[in-house]
Amino acid sequence: MEKVQVCFYPESRCIEVDKGENLLRAAMKADVHINASCGGEGYCGKCRVIVEKGEVKQKLQVKLTEEEARQGYVLACTCTVESDVEVRVPIETQLGDRSALTRRPPIPLKGYTLSAKEWAERLPQWELNPPTTKFHLLLDKPTLEDNLSDAERIKRELSKLAGLKEVVIDYPMLQALPGLIRASSFDVTVTVLDRGQELRAVRIEKGDTSVRQAAIAVDLGTTTVSTQLVDLQTGQVIAEASDYNGQISYGEDVISRIIYSTRATGLAKLQSAAVSTIWNLIQQMVEQTNMEFCSITHLVISGNTTMAHLLLGIDPRYIRVDPYIPVAQYFPWIKASNVGIRIASGVYMRCTPAVASYVGGDIVSGVLASGMFNSERMTLYIDIGTNGEMVLGNKDWLLSCSCSAGPAFEGAGVRHGMRATRGAIEQVRINEVTLEPMIITVGNRRPVGICGSGLIDVLAELFLTGIMDERGKINVDLPTPRVRKTDSGGEYVLAWAEESGTNRDVVITDVDIDNLMRAKAAIYAGINILLQEMAIDIDAVEEILIAGAFGRYLEIDKAIIIGLLPDVDTNKLKFVGNGSLLGSYLMVLSKNLIAEADRIANMMTYLELSTNPRFMDQYVSALFFPHTNIESFPTVARRLAEARETAKAGGPAPGGEGA
Amino acid sequence: MEKVQVCFYPESRCIEVDKGENLLRAAMKADVHINASCGGEGYCGKCRVIVEKGEVKQKLQVKLTEEEARQGYVLACTCTVESDVEVRVPIETQLGDRSALTRRPPIPLKGYTLSAKEWAERLPQWELNPPTTKFHLLLDKPTLEDNLSDAERIKRELSKLAGLKEVVIDYPMLQALPGLIRASSFDVTVTVLDRGQELRAVRIEKGDTSVRQAAIAVDLGTTTVSTQLVDLQTGQVIAEASDYNGQISYGEDVISRIIYSTRATGLAKLQSAAVSTIWNLIQQMVEQTNMEFCSITHLVISGNTTMAHLLLGIDPRYIRVDPYIPVAQYFPWIKASNVGIRIASGVYMRCTPAVASYVGGDIVSGVLASGMFNSERMTLYIDIGTNGEMVLGNKDWLLSCSCSAGPAFEGAGVRHGMRATRGAIEQVRINEVTLEPMIITVGNRRPVGICGSGLIDVLAELFLTGIMDERGKINVDLPTPRVRKTDSGGEYVLAWAEESGTNRDVVITDVDIDNLMRAKAAIYAGINILLQEMAIDIDAVEEILIAGAFGRYLEIDKAIIIGLLPDVDTNKLKFVGNGSLLGSYLMVLSKNLIAEADRIANMMTYLELSTNPRFMDQYVSALFFPHTNIESFPTVARRLAEARETAKAGGPAPGGEGA
Repeated sequence: MEKVQVCFYPESRCIEVDKGENLLRAAMKADVHINASCGGEGYCGKCRVIVEKGEVKQKLQVKLTEEEARQGYVLACTCTVESDVEVRVPIETQLGDRSALTRRPPIPLKGYTLSAKEWAERLPQWELNPPTTKFHLLLDKPTLEDNLSDAERIKRELSKLAGLKEVVIDYPMLQALPGLIRASSFDVTVTVLDRGQELRAVRIEKGDTSVRQAAIAVDLGTTTVSTQLVDLQTGQVIAEASDYNGQISYGEDVISRIIYSTRATGLAKLQSAAVSTIWNLIQQMVEQTNMEFCSITHLVISGNTTMAHLLLGIDPRYIRVDPYIPVAQYFPWIKASNVGIRIASGVYMRCTPAVASYVGGDIVSGVLASGMFNSERMTLYIDIGTNGEMVLGNKDWLLSCSCSAGPAFEGAGVRHGMRATRGAIEQVRINEVTLEPMIITVGNRRPVGICGSGLIDVLAELFLTGIMDERGKINVDLPTPRVRKTDSGGEYVLAWAEESGTNRDVVITDVDIDNLMRAKAAIYAGINILLQEMAIDIDAVEEILIAGAFGRYLEIDKAIIIGLLPDVDTNKLKFVGNGSLLGSYLMVLSKNLIAEADRIANMMTYLELSTNPRFMDQYVSALFFPHTNIESFPTVARRLAEARETAKAGGPAPGGEGA
Repeated sequence: MEKVQVCFYPESRCIEVDKGENLLRAAMKADVHINASCGGEGYCGKCRVIVEKGEVKQKLQVKLTEEEARQGYVLACTCTVESDVEVRVPIETQLGDRSALTRRPPIPLKGYTLSAKEWAERLPQWELNPPTTKFHLLLDKPTLEDNLSDAERIKRELSKLAGLKEVVIDYPMLQALPGLIRASSFDVTVTVLDRGQELRAVRIEKGDTSVRQAAIAVDLGTTTVSTQLVDLQTGQVIAEASDYNGQISYGEDVISRIIYSTRATGLAKLQSAAVSTIWNLIQQMVEQTNMEFCSITHLVISGNTTMAHLLLGIDPRYIRVDPYIPVAQYFPWIKASNVGIRIASGVYMRCTPAVASYVGGDIVSGVLASGMFNSERMTLYIDIGTNGEMVLGNKDWLLSCSCSAGPAFEGAGVRHGMRATRGAIEQVRINEVTLEPMIITVGNRRPVGICGSGLIDVLAELFLTGIMDERGKINVDLPTPRVRKTDSGGEYVLAWAEESGTNRDVVITDVDIDNLMRAKAAIYAGINILLQEMAIDIDAVEEILIAGAFGRYLEIDKAIIIGLLPDVDTNKLKFVGNGSLLGSYLMVLSKNLIAEADRIANMMTYLELSTNPRFMDQYVSALFFPHTNIESFPTVARRLAEARETAKAGGPAPGGEGA
């Protein structure tokens, strides 16, 4: 991706961004405050900036006079950066309706995602050696002297060509054999699946199809299903697709799905919904590429324990009742058509093994991808989603737990909470002095609600600006119309009704904050319990890996500010991205890693938190911003002090060349 | 079975028979001639004998006057022997309507069937260790501390209890697990299938069902399907059933079935017909015993290569075209429900491996049962059915071939040929002087036709009595109304219309004899080719094993007389009975033998005869009774000379105490 430089004046703050980046988002990255209330739809017209040099592309041209346009004014939220540019932020755009102000000191790290090279170092056992292999066989034509059966002829050739011994031929393939083998004049391609204990010939095709082979990697999430179409020749992802899990209409979280599954045809409906979702995504991916369905030879599917059960049509009801027992932790290779995924004949699938009812194959897959099971370094792996799952350990041991953080960070239990779809506020800054927000929404639409990363941003900003106190209460006495008191407590208005996509004020309330605090407290408590259990200090943890689709826009420093993550050297923090999908991708390509996943699931210990009394203590202590024990968060304490100081002083004068 | 002694006077010939044996059959065994034309239905009234001592049970009392009954007369064909008895055969019953006569010298061996003890010696690797085992597991109830999944809990217990490692749990069993395990308070029985490469848990049941376990052994014949229900605890056969293969309506032999299978839905119909037949037999057997369907855990099915293909729904068409290639020789363990045999969930079946298109799993099964693959002795195994299959060898090598003898000995191509059903003439004697026949039919009904063993008897008797010459032509000039000339050649009347069940004369014709001669010539030629191929003289063969349902009533000396079998020391000849069923039975009980069957199929070499020029030479030489080269049949030559001598002399006077 080509990089361009964007410099904002009068702050003289320059950053490098991808060419094509949204200008408002660039300002947010540079920590330059621009008032923006409509989420980037160009509707409020507040984010006017002057492009002094370089090229931007303006999508919409609203709320600007002809004279303004001539002077170089653009709406930052509707522009993309096309070259190195210099942008002046006019005083009124910084101030909103009030006085001048700048941002607090910039935060160096916003998140660091591991590179492909780093993965390779972390996973020396990875090799391009998929569990299925296509063998192009030019069979000797049978004669009276060489009268082996079709099946034995294939086995002989597999043995000769590849040294494969004792291959079992799948029954449906036996049925397809005689006609196909002759129709292709004994020139065939046979797909062999290595099931670990057994080599199984699963498909036969005419001619040489070995040059094209693909597989599907799936992260079967409770909310979102993400898939990749992987070329097994090159190891490249050639298409990606994701969509909501079709099961959502039967319940938003794992527990409500389990309850639904106990209805008469509930389990079948949930299975069918997951299958349809996966199938549609596969279709989309195939359509995007020149790969064909019949080139697909296997699937690896990683999901939490309940998702795996539902996909396989296995009753999950005992997952949710004490003592929380899943039916299975390891799942056999089965024909994909057995669950209704009818890609082609002889396509097999495997669900990644789980550790326990609440630490599933998605976590095992992520831990696999993270390479922490290979590492000498003490590592903490955190997957933040509906539940927060975390794994502590290294190559010698792995301890895992899951805290039912609840879906607050996914928007549930938050008045204007929503998933990260169009119009969701995903990034927020609040000016310390004016207390005015700068918001960016998904898809640059008028704001309709707030998604997970937006919620973390909002909490951190409310807290840093002193709008919200340590107990999570909004100070309704502040001199801004954005804060106000209602019957159920205080609230802060992120977007006014006339700027919003719903014609209602988009707010965050005391009640919302309380729910979010409980979620963050559960995750933080879970991390601490793992550390306590092993008598390890957080500073002894050498690497913290953050996984989850949630992590996409998550700003680590914000998560630390609200006490969701421990206050550590941010250099230790790295993003894994969607660890479950990444692990699936790696397993699709390497049977060694499939075996490693089994080993990881087996070596990982599970700590049940729901009945752990120390967990409750930790949880209660964490019901505070950032934490009851502020000494655990020295960085946050310092930043809070700085921010309050700045706010009290009315802020330093705008830096650089001046207003 | 209780034995009783039957002595016939005036010959003073005594034999031991099972209590309840038919008296006419006892006479035939003792080589005492009694005129009998109606097949044993008591209709002709010719077989009158006097019971002088002991008890017989008379089923019918026809054709006897009150006075005769008072004197102890009975109709031999309708009586069973209930104690040691002495029976006088009146002169008129011996002579028919003509002069006195006795039988030629008795033949010592009629066939010797191997005993159970002998099987044990032949198969040291046999042990009661079935491929499926039921394990009764009292699982620890899960707790928060012991929170293994249901599946891992079962695996742990299997490992603890039986040392089983790496058991794979079958997918449908996974689905059944959670509900069942709890409904039974964690007291369950799990069935584990040892597939050789893999241990697979295939079924779970409530409580302890391990005390009752059964399996099904099947001989899937082209004509007849024979099954046994085997108690796996004791190793005993607890029920048997057999029936015609339901595929018969689609063609009588393998070739016509293959042709039918190429029609649009032909293969599916044939598969379904075989499945129905097997299923009905299983139902019958279960009804006869107190065993339940759910006690059945597996099936072993032995059939010829085509039968295995059809049962599995695998296209067999290439079996019948040069170079005669089957789709598969080895068949995987599959769920019985996959072919439509729905006994219970998780019941697996396996077809015995084949050697080639025309040496199938039935032969491998028989060779297994015979133990010849263990033996130092040079052994010849012959299975006479529609095709004649033969195997020569010992523990070091096995050479097999199949000669398309054609179904003549099964009654096809013979005017009054029929299968061994009610009314089929199965045993025949012809008096050398009177040329009158003594016939016994299946079920003691009026004769309607002649089955395989009857045909061999007829040929041998016609030949010994000089009614038929070496070329198989009936001498129509003999002074008896039983021989006569028709437009298509000579014929001999076995039963007159008024005695028959069809109101037509039951005859054997020159054309019939020609067909039978070609069949016996093919078998004899096959045997000789095997011997030639290995440069082994027939006298170097230490044991000859005769298998086939056909072998049930087959009298070995008769088969030698017509040149179907080589003229050897009859002590070398032993009956295996239904070798295919016996092998299936043994495999059902012992996974060692399942592995041995694979080894046998692998070590056995197949010799294709249809294109072997030496086979044609051998075949042509065998188109003669007993053979062109009479020196190969010294015993037959001697007996022929004796018989002709006897006939010329008008026979010796009745022996013993005289008439």
